[in-house]
Amino acid sequence: MEKNGNNRKLRVCVATCNRADYSKLAPIMCGIKTEPEFFELDVVVLGSHLIDDYGNTYRMIEQDDFDINTRLHTIVRGEDEAAMVESVGLALVKLPDVLNRLKPDIMIVHGDRFDALALATSAALMNIRILHIEGGEVSGTIDDSIRHAITKLAHYHVCCTRSAEQHLISMCEDHDRILLAGCPSYDKLLCAKNKDYMSIIRMWLGDDVKPKDYIVALQHPVTTDIKHSIKMFELTLDALISFNKRTLVLFPNIDAGSKEMVRVMRKKGIEHHPNFRAVKHVPFEQFIQLVAHAGCVIGNSSCGVREVGAFGTPVINLGTRQIGRETGENVLHVRDADTQDKILQALHLQFGKQYPCSKIYGDGNAVPRILKFLKSIDLQEPLQKKFCFPPVKDNISQDIDHILETLSALAVDLGGTNLRVAIVSMKGEIVKKYTQFNPKTYEERINLILQMCVEAAAEAVKLNCRILGVAQVFPQVAA
Amino acid sequence: MEKNGNNRKLRVCVATCNRADYSKLAPIMCGIKTEPEFFELDVVVLGSHLIDDYGNTYRMIEQDDFDINTRLHTIVRGEDEAAMVESVGLALVKLPDVLNRLKPDIMIVHGDRFDALALATSAALMNIRILHIEGGEVSGTIDDSIRHAITKLAHYHVCCTRSAEQHLISMCEDHDRILLAGCPSYDKLLCAKNKDYMSIIRMWLGDDVKPKDYIVALQHPVTTDIKHSIKMFELTLDALISFNKRTLVLFPNIDAGSKEMVRVMRKKGIEHHPNFRAVKHVPFEQFIQLVAHAGCVIGNSSCGVREVGAFGTPVINLGTRQIGRETGENVLHVRDADTQDKILQALHLQFGKQYPCSKIYGDGNAVPRILKFLKSIDLQEPLQKKFCFPPVKDNISQDIDHILETLSALAVDLGGTNLRVAIVSMKGEIVKKYTQFNPKTYEERINLILQMCVEAAAEAVKLNCRILGVAQVFPQVAA
Amino acid sequence: MEKNGNNRKLRVCVATCNRADYSKLAPIMCGIKTEPEFFELDVVVLGSHLIDDYGNTYRMIEQDDFDINTRLHTIVRGEDEAAMVESVGLALVKLPDVLNRLKPDIMIVHGDRFDALALATSAALMNIRILHIEGGEVSGTIDDSIRHAITKLAHYHVCCTRSAEQHLISMCEDHDRILLAGCPSYDKLLCAKNKDYMSIIRMWLGDDVKPKDYIVALQHPVTTDIKHSIKMFELTLDALISFNKRTLVLFPNIDAGSKEMVRVMRKKGIEHHPNFRAVKHVPFEQFIQLVAHAGCVIGNSSCGVREVGAFGTPVINLGTRQIGRETGENVLHVRDADTQDKILQALHLQFGKQYPCSKIYGDGNAVPRILKFLKSIDLQEPLQKKFCFPPVKDNISQDIDHILETLSALAVDLGGTNLRVAIVSMKGEIVKKYTQFNPKTYEERINLILQMCVEAAAEAVKLNCRILGVAQVFPQVAA
Amino acid sequence: MEKNGNNRKLRVCVATCNRADYSKLAPIMCGIKTEPEFFELDVVVLGSHLIDDYGNTYRMIEQDDFDINTRLHTIVRGEDEAAMVESVGLALVKLPDVLNRLKPDIMIVHGDRFDALALATSAALMNIRILHIEGGEVSGTIDDSIRHAITKLAHYHVCCTRSAEQHLISMCEDHDRILLAGCPSYDKLLCAKNKDYMSIIRMWLGDDVKPKDYIVALQHPVTTDIKHSIKMFELTLDALISFNKRTLVLFPNIDAGSKEMVRVMRKKGIEHHPNFRAVKHVPFEQFIQLVAHAGCVIGNSSCGVREVGAFGTPVINLGTRQIGRETGENVLHVRDADTQDKILQALHLQFGKQYPCSKIYGDGNAVPRILKFLKSIDLQEPLQKKFCFPPVKDNISQDIDHILETLSALAVDLGGTNLRVAIVSMKGEIVKKYTQFNPKTYEERINLILQMCVEAAAEAVKLNCRILGVAQVFPQVAA
Repeated sequence: MEKNGNNRKLRVCVATCNRADYSKLAPIMCGIKTEPEFFELDVVVLGSHLIDDYGNTYRMIEQDDFDINTRLHTIVRGEDEAAMVESVGLALVKLPDVLNRLKPDIMIVHGDRFDALALATSAALMNIRILHIEGGEVSGTIDDSIRHAITKLAHYHVCCTRSAEQHLISMCEDHDRILLAGCPSYDKLLCAKNKDYMSIIRMWLGDDVKPKDYIVALQHPVTTDIKHSIKMFELTLDALISFNKRTLVLFPNIDAGSKEMVRVMRKKGIEHHPNFRAVKHVPFEQFIQLVAHAGCVIGNSSCGVREVGAFGTPVINLGTRQIGRETGENVLHVRDADTQDKILQALHLQFGKQYPCSKIYGDGNAVPRILKFLKSIDLQEPLQKKFCFPPVKDNISQDIDHILETLSALAVDLGGTNLRVAIVSMKGEIVKKYTQFNPKTYEERINLILQMCVEAAAEAVKLNCRILGVAQVFPQVAA
Repeated sequence: MEKNGNNRKLRVCVATCNRADYSKLAPIMCGIKTEPEFFELDVVVLGSHLIDDYGNTYRMIEQDDFDINTRLHTIVRGEDEAAMVESVGLALVKLPDVLNRLKPDIMIVHGDRFDALALATSAALMNIRILHIEGGEVSGTIDDSIRHAITKLAHYHVCCTRSAEQHLISMCEDHDRILLAGCPSYDKLLCAKNKDYMSIIRMWLGDDVKPKDYIVALQHPVTTDIKHSIKMFELTLDALISFNKRTLVLFPNIDAGSKEMVRVMRKKGIEHHPNFRAVKHVPFEQFIQLVAHAGCVIGNSSCGVREVGAFGTPVINLGTRQIGRETGENVLHVRDADTQDKILQALHLQFGKQYPCSKIYGDGNAVPRILKFLKSIDLQEPLQKKFCFPPVKDNISQDIDHILETLSALAVDLGGTNLRVAIVSMKGEIVKKYTQFNPKTYEERINLILQMCVEAAAEAVKLNCRILGVAQVFPQVAA
Repeated sequence: MEKNGNNRKLRVCVATCNRADYSKLAPIMCGIKTEPEFFELDVVVLGSHLIDDYGNTYRMIEQDDFDINTRLHTIVRGEDEAAMVESVGLALVKLPDVLNRLKPDIMIVHGDRFDALALATSAALMNIRILHIEGGEVSGTIDDSIRHAITKLAHYHVCCTRSAEQHLISMCEDHDRILLAGCPSYDKLLCAKNKDYMSIIRMWLGDDVKPKDYIVALQHPVTTDIKHSIKMFELTLDALISFNKRTLVLFPNIDAGSKEMVRVMRKKGIEHHPNFRAVKHVPFEQFIQLVAHAGCVIGNSSCGVREVGAFGTPVINLGTRQIGRETGENVLHVRDADTQDKILQALHLQFGKQYPCSKIYGDGNAVPRILKFLKSIDLQEPLQKKFCFPPVKDNISQDIDHILETLSALAVDLGGTNLRVAIVSMKGEIVKKYTQFNPKTYEERINLILQMCVEAAAEAVKLNCRILGVAQVFPQVAA
Repeated sequence: MEKNGNNRKLRVCVATCNRADYSKLAPIMCGIKTEPEFFELDVVVLGSHLIDDYGNTYRMIEQDDFDINTRLHTIVRGEDEAAMVESVGLALVKLPDVLNRLKPDIMIVHGDRFDALALATSAALMNIRILHIEGGEVSGTIDDSIRHAITKLAHYHVCCTRSAEQHLISMCEDHDRILLAGCPSYDKLLCAKNKDYMSIIRMWLGDDVKPKDYIVALQHPVTTDIKHSIKMFELTLDALISFNKRTLVLFPNIDAGSKEMVRVMRKKGIEHHPNFRAVKHVPFEQFIQLVAHAGCVIGNSSCGVREVGAFGTPVINLGTRQIGRETGENVLHVRDADTQDKILQALHLQFGKQYPCSKIYGDGNAVPRILKFLKSIDLQEPLQKKFCFPPVKDNISQDIDHILETLSALAVDLGGTNLRVAIVSMKGEIVKKYTQFNPKTYEERINLILQMCVEAAAEAVKLNCRILGVAQVFPQVAA
């Protein structure tokens, strides 16, 4: 049993809200389950997992053979921002009862969705340690605010990229509690890479298709600019039709705007076009194979800029939905996808290339790192977060303990052989001592002692100790 | 009418949850009300304002002649952390309906309480600008996490101290949206300073009391260590009895532990002791006069370390409740108030002194600054927050627009007199140009152009522009 | 201005949750709006009105030119009973703020859905008078419990049928507060009857169709037995195909099971069958015309058993969904719709018949009656409901007032000509008097007066009056 | 194992909200616990049990050695009706998760408080059987509406008095599901009666006090008329002071108004008066002894009119708070307690009397009856409630099954000796038979059979049977 300061198993609560966060959390959950001597796992399912329109994806969790301890309806209907806030509220009303029942040592939360904010808020206020996955990234959207707010509530951070790590440090999170692990989904991704894939490609794209000679298209509505994203989708389909390669088009997700996009597909006859296959869902394992061997992936899915890079497959990223994301060199951005021609040129540039595989988002070893990190958590350490602000000018208030110690020391010292000054840490430990031979005259003594104090004070700042107001008592002593 | 990009009044929603935040928000609300040509004010009252046990303090707002637009019960009973989380949830369930009705341009939120987190979360998710008052401070308690999380959700920051401002910048908030205004309560504080005060002192402490010759004691339970804070209160009372000066003792606030503290007061006979006056509440204006002319203020109230410094009145701060706060030199800390003697010595050291008045928390001009800041808000600016992360190694992905522009430029240029390379900003503007005489041989050309690109790329990093992958198209061009 | 005890307009709040209740409430709302000198109307919209999947039917209300004062998201996603309960909870958390803001004199609530229970609960607990529409009916499903519970919370009842009225009386509601008005939707229904209808029929069923020579089919899933209702739908479609008449099939509503039913329609090729028209929604006014002139209406919609009877159109009601409803003779039940043949025979029996028009559910004058009822409400009357329980054995406890009055009265009266005793109702009215010649001796007098009291008491029990106050008339008598 | 249709233990969930309902539920819970072979018990604690100001009474439950499965904060602060509604909402948001986890066969709910309405609503909508304790009573306050609404949602009723039982039947509840058990608190009450009591009396009232020679006073604020109830309390204290007997005064409960009442007590000097003892709480067992041997109980507590009657102790009930309650003859009402003199006279009338012990509210055997009733519940019976409405005119719609059977039956029967028709009840029982000799000609036969059917149909209406199924006996007849 490794230490967590308790000589007992670490009770880990993983809360998952939707298919997307589950794809990152599942590998960690699997890892936790393989070490029952170290961990107890409780799974809480909420959010869109439990909604029929989103595919009742809680069943994936059951199929993966996890016991779901608790299911919470937390989504208020309304499909606008108000409903989103109310959904956070609903989750916050319900979660405390669950957390009081489960009493986890640590809760693992992923990402930047409103559900994750609810999870982090409840755990933080209830003094439960939070491990946040995928903090520090920047997408350039409203999600940034939520993601960074969760960072401020979380006690431990597992990030995916070096930039994310640097961002977390920049935001004054404690470096000791940040783990650059890579994205857990990469563990699955990369070990899946070498499997036989031809049958999968044939199943989804037809018998006559060759590797690197087909396209995967995956475009979602941008909820903040639906009109424009419909237009962009139309241009994309036109370009793909012109480009004349076998293409798998995935239906857009269910966000506002998706119905109009489906209508565009119908209008363009995509569903019946010989070059196209239009499908609603491809299981993740098979999807990996499809993008790994595609001639090109096109669209605005985060998957394109995050996961596909692992295989060096060319990606054309349309619009601004992924604008702030780090990407490998395999990604070609078409920010203003305002003409069919521009998209077509991008297809000509990218199709069929092979880029070096990118490890920006992970090297396939995230889970072992995370498990080790979890085991290293010392539950005896205070829960209170440290924020590593750069030094600012310190307090000029005084401390009675210091004064008392100083007073007695000086009483002895003024008549002695040496003058002594010390930097004392907040905990009362002497960090540094200064000793000088005691001059003869009073004036010399005062001058020397003032000089010593100035020196000590300067040093104290560097050591991030308090300056202690040492000199302020001297006049009284001298009097 | 000043600009907010709309040529109309700014709709400001101020949400106040309790007596404490109202003391900071009230001066701002008064200021807003004096400029009806610029502002429309909606007041939302929630939290403990509406609770009898907390004095139904919403009545203060009515007495100050503000129209309360909306009152929301948001507190779930239970007096533990779970109830706190559920209260946040309750507020989040209710606030969207209010915000949809009021449609404010900006919501002003104060501080670091759980209620403030609810307000900030709802406004942020509903795309309403948030002005956060008193961010960036550090108290060393759980409040820090909440305060910094609110910072991440807020769009504008009004902070009270220079350290707080530096902390906000350190956490990568946009410097342009941070206003160091000082604490709004100081505006009231400082303009109240010169009023006739003797009658007030006599009313609360007796006819025979002289200025600087009495003590004000204000100690609250520390909810995370109730037992210890009772003990400390007992020692404090003993020390005060020994010290033998006229003393005004305020009853502790209503947090868990207060009942035991009242019992301690009864046991020590404070209510009947000739030197003591025990009272439940002193109106703020009178309280200011009392602390301004006290010989010493003792206890663990934030008021001691924040407001009292403005008058240079000596303060003895007991315990760790205010441990992280910036203070003026008038504050003497007694961190481990573990003996009566220590407290007594502190009283001897501090009583009757006059320190220089501290402006750490404000200079009395916060409100005019805040109003000016509010007027300067441009509603046409995108709501999306910028986070000012220090530069990290930039993206290596490409951009089709750049490629297209570069391609055509090179097509022209390779045969011309000059080779040209440019740094292009994200918005497509040419930030910097590099021109070189076109060498004769192909090899020289390629070498030169590569060199130019390297130079441009290095510069681009400094300018915080994208490096643009300029060189990656050259091989194809050359081919 | 008629009396409501206040000489001011009656503030009426109508809360509508879905298309179904709105069809009953809209005629009342229209009526209220035509009498602005008597009524102020506030409209609160909640529930599935605001949900995209249910057609965002709040727009109907806007199109009908009502100002919607408040919109509340109240539906928790989950499509099971738990979500239904949570939705009630969400509504109850939000409604008090609205009711406190609107301060209606009376709230009008319709029906037996969970949303209506939330509305009634909040109004009842907040001392707001409730007018309940459509109470007293019996459907034989879980809705009965909810409907009757709302009845118990409501102060006024507007019912549609004589049976419903009798049920309300049976359940001990105060007869004075029950109005048998008929169903408000009938007002619209019956006045719509004579309009030109051929163009509507042609639009929905084709140019070549004649009145009384087509079928309207309207079948919904039965959520408590989805499997069986799919099977029944399949048999119905088979029977309709065999029956070989032009048929308009409405898509089922969105309850659990509807997707499977749509799949059955696709499998049977209904959408492309020359005899069939499959549509999602027909505006109510047009729908009325279609069923009024149909040869037969088939399915399990409440509309079939309630509204269609007004036109004497034959109805075939399938299954148990409407089992407890009152119906006219135009309805033929096929409770166990377990063979295609049975349904086919029913079609042969019913198709083309003309039954007498039924007034069970209304005569088209509900709204004027309801408005008059509303105007008659006296706001000065105590809010406290009276429940008209049949007499039970009365209290045997005593009342000091009675004793005191009796004592003194006897003292006065003993010398007079007559002894008098009276039964006084709770309201102080003299219900019955007993007079006897005053005997000579004291003993006789006492005996007689006791005997008179016993007699009066026995009578009082029968009259459901208080036994007391026997002597209240004595002082008057004596005077 | 007795039958519940399942051959397994009955899972009973008892939900308790406050000290008052627990005093009724605890005896049942104890009973359930003594028969573990029949029952599984889950205890859910919510409402004011968990609130410090209400004494954290959940600890009583722990001390009684029950495992509390779930604790839910459900009280929203605000102390007004809005907060009450929101508290119901909060409970409804949280309860489904608990019920889904516990999956009880039956939930036991007590009384008429808003918390109980939340419990009943959630269980009813989630298809969980509800046993309601103390339904059918009438108090003449808003509680009536809630109590009767719960009755409509509940499936089984345990009532305390014969009147309550009759009220339940009057409201059309199914007589078979009503148990007149008496009040469970009486079980404890009556078995406690003969214990040694002098030491208890001495402890609370002083050594020199004799049985039947002291008064117990128990007055609460009336939240709907606080001002009046303060005045009444003042008069009561004056009267008690004049009456000059040793008196135990219990502090009022914590409802709005209680603080003012305590102030009145202080003003009158009750706490220091030699004749008075003022206490906050007396444990129930001891309290029983005190009222059992008091010379008189005075006040407006429900305990006075309900429990005290069991001992025949005289009670003076002040004001209208208990106005609708059934009481024994030991109760003297002072409805308008508007003069000290009136109260004083009542004291003179009642003090020291001994009335016959009343069994109106129970005979001490409620719990065994309830356990037997619980065991008799057949879980295979449909959950759907039956409401026993008196007969109303029956349906005139037809039924295809009937028609088909009739048709075929006639075909078969035409050749037999007799023609037979029967009225068949809904459950298939033959209620009445009609037999006629079979005429010779076909025409006569048809005429006769039609005539018989008409006759049977007319009769069926009177018998409240279905008109149908006339011919169901024919095949049997024919066979």
